[in-house]
Amino acid sequence: MTADAKIDINALEKPWENLHELVTAGEAEPLLAFLDLMSPTETALAISRLSSEDQSRLLTLLSPADAAEVLEDISETQAADMIEELSPAHAAAILEELDSDHIADLLGDMDEDSAAAILDNMAPEEAEEARQFLEYPPDTAGGLMISECLAYREEQRISDVLTDLQANRETYADYNVQYLYVTDERQRLRGVLRMHDLLFPVHAAPLSQLMIRDPHKVRVDAGLDRLRDFFEEHRLFGAPVVDEQNRLQGVVLPEAVEEAGRKRSVRQFLGLSGIIGGEEFRSMPLLVRSGRRLSWLSLNIVLNIIAASVIAIYQDTLAAAIALAVFLPMVSDMSGCSGNQAVAVSMRELSLGLVRPGELLRVMAKEASLGVVNGLALGLLLGAVAFFWKNNYYLGLVVGGALAANTLVAVTLGGLLPLLLKRLKMDPALVSSPLLTTVTDMAGFFFVLSFATAVLPRLSGG
Amino acid sequence: MTADAKIDINALEKPWENLHELVTAGEAEPLLAFLDLMSPTETALAISRLSSEDQSRLLTLLSPADAAEVLEDISETQAADMIEELSPAHAAAILEELDSDHIADLLGDMDEDSAAAILDNMAPEEAEEARQFLEYPPDTAGGLMISECLAYREEQRISDVLTDLQANRETYADYNVQYLYVTDERQRLRGVLRMHDLLFPVHAAPLSQLMIRDPHKVRVDAGLDRLRDFFEEHRLFGAPVVDEQNRLQGVVLPEAVEEAGRKRSVRQFLGLSGIIGGEEFRSMPLLVRSGRRLSWLSLNIVLNIIAASVIAIYQDTLAAAIALAVFLPMVSDMSGCSGNQAVAVSMRELSLGLVRPGELLRVMAKEASLGVVNGLALGLLLGAVAFFWKNNYYLGLVVGGALAANTLVAVTLGGLLPLLLKRLKMDPALVSSPLLTTVTDMAGFFFVLSFATAVLPRLSGG
Repeated sequence: MTADAKIDINALEKPWENLHELVTAGEAEPLLAFLDLMSPTETALAISRLSSEDQSRLLTLLSPADAAEVLEDISETQAADMIEELSPAHAAAILEELDSDHIADLLGDMDEDSAAAILDNMAPEEAEEARQFLEYPPDTAGGLMISECLAYREEQRISDVLTDLQANRETYADYNVQYLYVTDERQRLRGVLRMHDLLFPVHAAPLSQLMIRDPHKVRVDAGLDRLRDFFEEHRLFGAPVVDEQNRLQGVVLPEAVEEAGRKRSVRQFLGLSGIIGGEEFRSMPLLVRSGRRLSWLSLNIVLNIIAASVIAIYQDTLAAAIALAVFLPMVSDMSGCSGNQAVAVSMRELSLGLVRPGELLRVMAKEASLGVVNGLALGLLLGAVAFFWKNNYYLGLVVGGALAANTLVAVTLGGLLPLLLKRLKMDPALVSSPLLTTVTDMAGFFFVLSFATAVLPRLSGG
Repeated sequence: MTADAKIDINALEKPWENLHELVTAGEAEPLLAFLDLMSPTETALAISRLSSEDQSRLLTLLSPADAAEVLEDISETQAADMIEELSPAHAAAILEELDSDHIADLLGDMDEDSAAAILDNMAPEEAEEARQFLEYPPDTAGGLMISECLAYREEQRISDVLTDLQANRETYADYNVQYLYVTDERQRLRGVLRMHDLLFPVHAAPLSQLMIRDPHKVRVDAGLDRLRDFFEEHRLFGAPVVDEQNRLQGVVLPEAVEEAGRKRSVRQFLGLSGIIGGEEFRSMPLLVRSGRRLSWLSLNIVLNIIAASVIAIYQDTLAAAIALAVFLPMVSDMSGCSGNQAVAVSMRELSLGLVRPGELLRVMAKEASLGVVNGLALGLLLGAVAFFWKNNYYLGLVVGGALAANTLVAVTLGGLLPLLLKRLKMDPALVSSPLLTTVTDMAGFFFVLSFATAVLPRLSGG
C-alpha cells in the first residue's frame, strides 16, 4: 500500500463522527480498517475529538496489539490519559505490546496509584523491567534506552548467530536491529558487530575474532546533552548502554535522543509562553485548562503589583506631568523586548555550548556594550517623539534618558539571567522572562519618574 | 578509543588559547591531534572564540577532508561564515568532502556571489548536483535528501550486488546504508531490499524476485510535516525520494527530518524572543548584533506608540484619577500574558494536527469560555487590590471590569491569531506576539480609561 492510497482526512468533513459511529457499532474489523486508512496525525485528531467513553470503548474493541499501535500515533500525555481510563488488566495487556522505553514513559505520565495497579497486572518479568526503567530519570540514557537489542556471547560463532536470527525472525522484526553486541559471561560489553559484517563471514569463527573491541558506549546516567554529543560525534544507529560494571543494559537509538530533545524544546516554548505544569489540549475540561493557566497568571499578578508599586510611590510627579503616563508602559515594554532578545541569545549559546555558565564577565561585557549602542539609538528615537509631541525639551530628555538607561539594564540582566539560573539549577526558560520583566518594569518606571522628579518644574511648564 | 579518553575541556582554562597557539605554530599534525581529542561541542566553543584570521588559517592548515569534519561540528551559520572567508578554490575542495545535502545548506547560507564563485571551483559534476539541490526549498524532501544511496537495476543479481559492495567498501562506508533501492532502465523506483535480506539470499536470483515491490516513498516536494508523518507511520531508516515520473532522486534520512524540525523550533523560539533575520552569536561584531536587534525593536517602538496613543487621548481622565496610572500597565501586561498562553496552545495544537486552520469557531468557543472564567477570576483579584488600596469601590469596579473584559479579548484573539496567520501563510511564531501585545495594550488602556470616564466623579471622590 502506498501513501497515496490514504484517505485525505481534510476531505472528510468530520472524521471523528465516522469514528464515533464505528465505535458505537462495536465491530472491530471495520474500525481497524478505518484507522489503517488514516495517517498518524489524522488518527490523533480524530481520537482527540471523541468523548472519553468512546476513547475507552475504541481501545477495548481492538486487540491489545492494535490498540498499542493506535497509542503510538498520539501524544504521550493523551495516550496516558486514555490508558488510565481502562481496567488495569486491559491497560496492562496493551502496554505489554509496547517497547520498554515507551511503557515507562506512559506509566511515568500517570498518577502513581494507576501505574501501580497496571504494573500488578503485567507479566512479572515485564513488570519488573518496567519498574526498573521507571527509576531512571527521564532525560538520561537509562530513561531513553530500549531493552530490545541483540546480544551474544563472545565465544559464540557466526553460524550460531545466523541460526538464532533465522529462528527468531518474527520477534526480531520489531527490533531496531543494526548491531549485535558481544558480551562476556557476566554480561559485560566486550565488542560490537554491524549487521553487514555478517555478509562475508567465516561461519566457524567465534564472535570475539570478528567484533570491534571496546566499542563506543554510554553510561545509564548520561544526560541528554551528553547523548546528543555522542551521536553527533559517532554517527551510529544506536549506542549500547552500560552500568558502572560495564554490563549491557540496553540500547539508545538516536531517534529517541532527538525526540527527547524536541520534547525539551516544546516544554521550553510552552514554558516561555506561560503554559506550565503539563501540556494543554483544548479537549481537556474547561476548569482544568483554566486552573492551570491561572496558577501561572496569579504569580504574574503579584510580580506586576510589585512593579507597579513604583508608580504609586511617584504619584505626585505623575499627576504634575501627566504626559509621562503615556511613556511609562512604552519604556518598560521596549526594555522588556530588548532584555528578552538577550535572554534568547544566552539560552541559545548555552544550548550550543558556546558559552559556559561561569562566563559572567564575558557576557556582561558583550551585552553592556550592545546595551549602550541600542539604548542610545532607542532613547534618541523615543526622546525625539516625546519632544516633538509636547514641544518640551525636558520631556524628551527624561523619556529618552530613561529608555537608554533601562535598555542597558535590561540587556545586561537578560544576558546574565540564563547563566545565573543555570548555575542555580533552575530552568532558564521558565524563570528568566517573568523575573526580567518585573525588574525592567520597576527600573523603567523608576528611571522615568525619578528623572522627571528632578526636572519637574521644567516639565509641567511645557 | 573510548569517550573517557577525551580531555575535559572545562578543565582546560581556555582551550581556544591552546588552539590559537597550535594554529600560529602552523603544523597540521599536532593541530589535528588536539581537535581529535575534543568533543563536537568543545570544538565548536574553541573555534568560535578564535579570530576570523585564525579560523581561516585553521581550515587551510588541515586537509580538505579534515577541515570538512571540523565544519560538521559547528553550527551551519558559523560554518558558512568561515568558508566564505577562504579562497573559492579552497572552499570548493572542502565542500566536496561533505554530503550533498550539507553542501547545499552551507551554500544557501552564503551570499550569492560567494556561493557562485565556490560552485565554479567545484568539479563540474558535483557543482551540477549542488546547483540542483539548491533549487529545492529547504524544508522539503528535495532539500533534505542526500544523493548518496545504493541503487541497482531489477535484472541485476544478488551476486552482482555483493561484488559491488565488496569492491566499493570504502566509498560506501561513508554512506548511511540501510536499504538497496531497485530501479528500472529509466531510473524509476521499483522496489527495495533491506541490507539483512542479503544474509540468506539465492545468489543467482535477480533482485526483482527478492525485493519488496512498490515501496513506501516520498515526493521531492513533500514538506516537513508530511515527512514527519511518514517516519512516524513507517519506522524506516530512510525514505526514497522520487520526482513526478517516479524516478529515484535520493534518500531522506529520519535524522535529517528530525534536525530540520529542531531547527524550525529554534527559529520559532528565537523569533518569539525577537531575534529575527538569522541566529546571533556573541562572537559576531557589535554593530551587526546591534543592528539586527534594532531592526526588530524599531518596529516594536512603532507598535508601542500606536498603543500608547490611547492613553494620550484620555489624558484628562487620567489626570483626574491618577491612581489609574498604576493599573494601566498591569491590565495590559496581564492580558498580554493570558493571550500568549492561548497563542502557545493554538500553535501546539496546529503543529500536532489537533486543530485545523479553518476551525475558527471551535477555537473561539473554547477560548471565549476560558476567557470568561479567567477574566472573572483575575478581575476579582485585581479589582479587590484596587478597592482596598484606595478604599474606593468604583476604582475596584473599573480596574477589575477592565481586566476581565481585556482578558476575554486577549484570550480569544490569542487563540485565533495562529490559525488566521497560518491561513494567510504568515509565520505565527513571528507575528502573533507583537500583534497580540499591541491589540491587548490598546484594548486594556481603552477599557480602563473609558470605564473610568463613565464614573469619573465617583473615582476622584475616593
